[in-house]
Amino acid sequence: MKSVTFDKVNLGGFWKNRFEINKNSTIPTVYDRFSDTGRFRAFEFNWKDGDPDKPHIFWDSDIAKWIEAVAYTINKSPDKELEAVVDRIVDLIEKNRDENGYFNIYFTVCEPDNRFVNRMAHELYCAGHLTEAAIAYYNATGKDKFLKLMCDYMEHIEKVFVVEDSAEFCTPGHEEIELALVKLYDCTGNKKYLDMSSHFVEARGTRQKDFDSPYYIGHDYDQSHKPVREQERATGHSVRATYLYCAMADLALRLNDKSLYDACRRLFMSIAEKQMYVTGGIGSTRYGERFTEDYDLPNDVAYSETCASIGLALFARRMSLIEPDSIYADIAETAIYNCALAGVSLKGNSFFYVNPLEINLERRRRNKEYYQYNAGGFEITQRVEVFDCSCCPPNIARMIASIGDFLYTYNNDTVFVHHYFESDAEFDGIKITQNTEYPNNGAVKLTVKGMKGKTLAVRIPAWAEKHKIGADIAKTEKGYAYIAIDADEKEIRLDFAMECRLVAANPAVEADIGRVALCRGPLVYCAERVDNNAPLNNLSVSENLNAEIAFDEEMQAYTVEADGFADSTFESLYRKYRPDFVPERIKFIPYFAFANRGESDMLVWMRVK
Amino acid sequence: MKSVTFDKVNLGGFWKNRFEINKNSTIPTVYDRFSDTGRFRAFEFNWKDGDPDKPHIFWDSDIAKWIEAVAYTINKSPDKELEAVVDRIVDLIEKNRDENGYFNIYFTVCEPDNRFVNRMAHELYCAGHLTEAAIAYYNATGKDKFLKLMCDYMEHIEKVFVVEDSAEFCTPGHEEIELALVKLYDCTGNKKYLDMSSHFVEARGTRQKDFDSPYYIGHDYDQSHKPVREQERATGHSVRATYLYCAMADLALRLNDKSLYDACRRLFMSIAEKQMYVTGGIGSTRYGERFTEDYDLPNDVAYSETCASIGLALFARRMSLIEPDSIYADIAETAIYNCALAGVSLKGNSFFYVNPLEINLERRRRNKEYYQYNAGGFEITQRVEVFDCSCCPPNIARMIASIGDFLYTYNNDTVFVHHYFESDAEFDGIKITQNTEYPNNGAVKLTVKGMKGKTLAVRIPAWAEKHKIGADIAKTEKGYAYIAIDADEKEIRLDFAMECRLVAANPAVEADIGRVALCRGPLVYCAERVDNNAPLNNLSVSENLNAEIAFDEEMQAYTVEADGFADSTFESLYRKYRPDFVPERIKFIPYFAFANRGESDMLVWMRVK
Repeated sequence: MKSVTFDKVNLGGFWKNRFEINKNSTIPTVYDRFSDTGRFRAFEFNWKDGDPDKPHIFWDSDIAKWIEAVAYTINKSPDKELEAVVDRIVDLIEKNRDENGYFNIYFTVCEPDNRFVNRMAHELYCAGHLTEAAIAYYNATGKDKFLKLMCDYMEHIEKVFVVEDSAEFCTPGHEEIELALVKLYDCTGNKKYLDMSSHFVEARGTRQKDFDSPYYIGHDYDQSHKPVREQERATGHSVRATYLYCAMADLALRLNDKSLYDACRRLFMSIAEKQMYVTGGIGSTRYGERFTEDYDLPNDVAYSETCASIGLALFARRMSLIEPDSIYADIAETAIYNCALAGVSLKGNSFFYVNPLEINLERRRRNKEYYQYNAGGFEITQRVEVFDCSCCPPNIARMIASIGDFLYTYNNDTVFVHHYFESDAEFDGIKITQNTEYPNNGAVKLTVKGMKGKTLAVRIPAWAEKHKIGADIAKTEKGYAYIAIDADEKEIRLDFAMECRLVAANPAVEADIGRVALCRGPLVYCAERVDNNAPLNNLSVSENLNAEIAFDEEMQAYTVEADGFADSTFESLYRKYRPDFVPERIKFIPYFAFANRGESDMLVWMRVK
Repeated sequence: MKSVTFDKVNLGGFWKNRFEINKNSTIPTVYDRFSDTGRFRAFEFNWKDGDPDKPHIFWDSDIAKWIEAVAYTINKSPDKELEAVVDRIVDLIEKNRDENGYFNIYFTVCEPDNRFVNRMAHELYCAGHLTEAAIAYYNATGKDKFLKLMCDYMEHIEKVFVVEDSAEFCTPGHEEIELALVKLYDCTGNKKYLDMSSHFVEARGTRQKDFDSPYYIGHDYDQSHKPVREQERATGHSVRATYLYCAMADLALRLNDKSLYDACRRLFMSIAEKQMYVTGGIGSTRYGERFTEDYDLPNDVAYSETCASIGLALFARRMSLIEPDSIYADIAETAIYNCALAGVSLKGNSFFYVNPLEINLERRRRNKEYYQYNAGGFEITQRVEVFDCSCCPPNIARMIASIGDFLYTYNNDTVFVHHYFESDAEFDGIKITQNTEYPNNGAVKLTVKGMKGKTLAVRIPAWAEKHKIGADIAKTEKGYAYIAIDADEKEIRLDFAMECRLVAANPAVEADIGRVALCRGPLVYCAERVDNNAPLNNLSVSENLNAEIAFDEEMQAYTVEADGFADSTFESLYRKYRPDFVPERIKFIPYFAFANRGESDMLVWMRVK
């Protein structure tokens, strides 16, 4: 099975709008902040002791992700100025790399004697992100200088880690290079890179040198507790985890490795069934930014990092390529439209690193120490333009710029429609046009050309209890309706009824007990204090929603008003319980749009009556 | 108005049982633990640098409260052995005090040069408790040695603090001496002590020397932010606060000081209407063991110290003497039967210092750091025999031993019946017998002798929505039914219908939103995991309680089973909300009886459906 890559897809509607904001606001904002903080300047390799803005071990990767976002953007929407910025950085990489191909700012400028010593120092992680950037830039521009530099670097890494095994560790403390190597294999056709990826993936959790390496902080944290094929559930730092799982899925597909896929499936299901916020957020605690225990999903101190949610979507997309089971695209959809998209403001110029499911300013004020300790470090009641650890802003930028990647996969017989975006796509003689207001309306007109004799498999979203498929369905399997295409041009109308619905969590999720999340289509909603008359926890949404929707131009989505109740207020501290609640219409907005109107309480999981 | 003191009251039923447990288990247990920890030995004044068990600044008060408990106990139930222990300590006090009357273990043995330097070092607090003990012991035995020693000490204190004003501070950092001085005035008739109490009370919050004194930790914390008459709401350390308010009420009564009473009333209402747990617990945070803000009453990290609840009951009792308003006895009743009584186990030999309204072991395990920080320092999921700061065990012991103090107040015309205890009492030619199973049954037979021509005012508990008073009622005012007594012997039957009821908190109390507390009569109930099939937060109690009660011998109280629902369990992490709950009988026990069967989850505020 192959992906239809984003460059084959022209977007309209919701995602076109987001692409434009991403290009015109997010990419320049991230550029400005990364300039302010010295990240671009660092490529000049002239930082000296005592200078401000000492390069950080992960800065290479910040710029790499920004370049990747730029590459995807100019691939669809050329921009000479942006291209010139990248070319300048590539020149600096060429100029400042070692003769042996090695390139790393921090470990050349700041600690040249400590190369490949500290497993936790993101060296191979940076190499991976630079490689992803180089491939994206090559695909966008045809310029291969950056790509060749990274191929040289990978030769060096192969020598050190595979041939000589001479580094102080065997596998990286932060996975990323594994998936980058598969991309490099796809790009160059050189099987060596696939072997290197396999090497790093399979060696994980098996080598004493890794456990003994300096700064090692524990088996679970970086998924080194067992050989990857034996891992039963997603553990540890959630971005690390999903990047590893991406590479595992990549390898399982390319090597047709069933047992590796089975491991991926187990890990995926352990997230989807036990460890994922309703928004597609993962990694519930800031202690290690990690998975904790099944059903441990607190809302107000949710960590739920933007990057982790992006990682989950990337993992899910890769799984769709191996087995057409709609749970993968369902989860990708949830993560993309909710947690990931909440990571960036509607204007595109400010960001969340952590994405809580409740903000209660009064509770925070009263328990300052607790929130400082549990949710602190990153400001999380309002989005900001840059973080010290600023992985998320360029990550969301590259995801939005390449969102078309998620749309279709195909093999010789069948094209799978995983998502519904206003778009047209052309690949291998096939042309598919989607007309839809998705994610705001579930009606989709698919126009398919060049598929006569083939099968179109359309995903029925898990949320779409009621739906109409305007075609004969050959079979429905694992969430896809398979439609035989019997004409050169075929128009198929799908209608996934987008009714507001209330979602309950498993009663084992203590934080959500007695509460529901309002959802509509793929969007999870939240209430903000600024829209409502009572403190949000004094509101209950009614089982009989009686919902009305209204389109909001800035959000490019519907807001919802629904029936509910406010707790009746009274003077005394205690009184005999009376079931007298005050009817109250409650306003909800898409979760991705929260915190765009100043600081306000916010609540996803609301009491239900 | 005067109190009928406990020595005039013979108890039966519930409190007789508690008195026996107190005498036979609590007093010996506290004795043993105070011996183990060196508290008794410290009175020998032979501790030296390097020895174990260095005396602590508050140890004098621990022993003083134990002596006070012993004195109340032997007053009603003589015990030569206990008396001998006290005599020995009194001899040691006599032997080791200074010539000028000063007595303090720590500031004689450990820091003799720092007397009356550190306002926060509990010196006057210890003097106050020793004085209370001396008075109690004199009343119990007629032996006046201890009393005289304390009068000498008070002479010295008067000289230093009132006449010369030569100490490093003017008022104590921990109030207590103020109320002890009023007791000493009542005991000796010497008005000097009343003047000294007034002096300390009125000087509070007015003297720069106090704010400048070493170790001073802030105005609010010890109620020094304003002159006491101007204070609007209860603030700061809640034990300190209630002890101060006790003295203020004592002075208001004895000096007929209306404006001081008004301040007391304001402060009392600020607790009762805004800052009190449904159990009568106060001081919601461990940071300073203090009052925080109105409606800030978290359940699982509730501090709610046993001593503070006792302090509230003592304050309320004093207020009843000034104005017959049943809110005072209502609050005293709530505090006594719930928070205070929960401070000691049913067997009488282990204690809580803090009294949470929820224990969720799983949540604690998952958030260890949070609970260590917020509720730590004292083990609070199981009672223990002694704490480093062990003020609570002897405090609950002295309260139980003198519980009869709460029963009646009277003046020339009227006897007020504030509480209902199986008992008989004789005072000033009046004899009142109560036959009742209170707090387990609201039927009370009052037999009154020697009151012809006087009025009996019986309190109608605030919880008693339905009640019958078997007599002609002259008037009902502020919660008391006034009954003219027209015969030498009169039998009056009261019936306060004890139905199980559900209590709701003001919606401003975020922790209790959507939840209710089951109560019956004066008792607040809780559910323990050990009695129930589902995690407690997965249960909802039904609005239609359909309650059944069953008597429990060890608790000497009724347990309750009521209708409710368990959240229906399902496999998936999320699903469309369905209002399908599983009917489930839920068992509740009195809050005072929780944590007597090993470690278990516990919940007062349960969801309601």
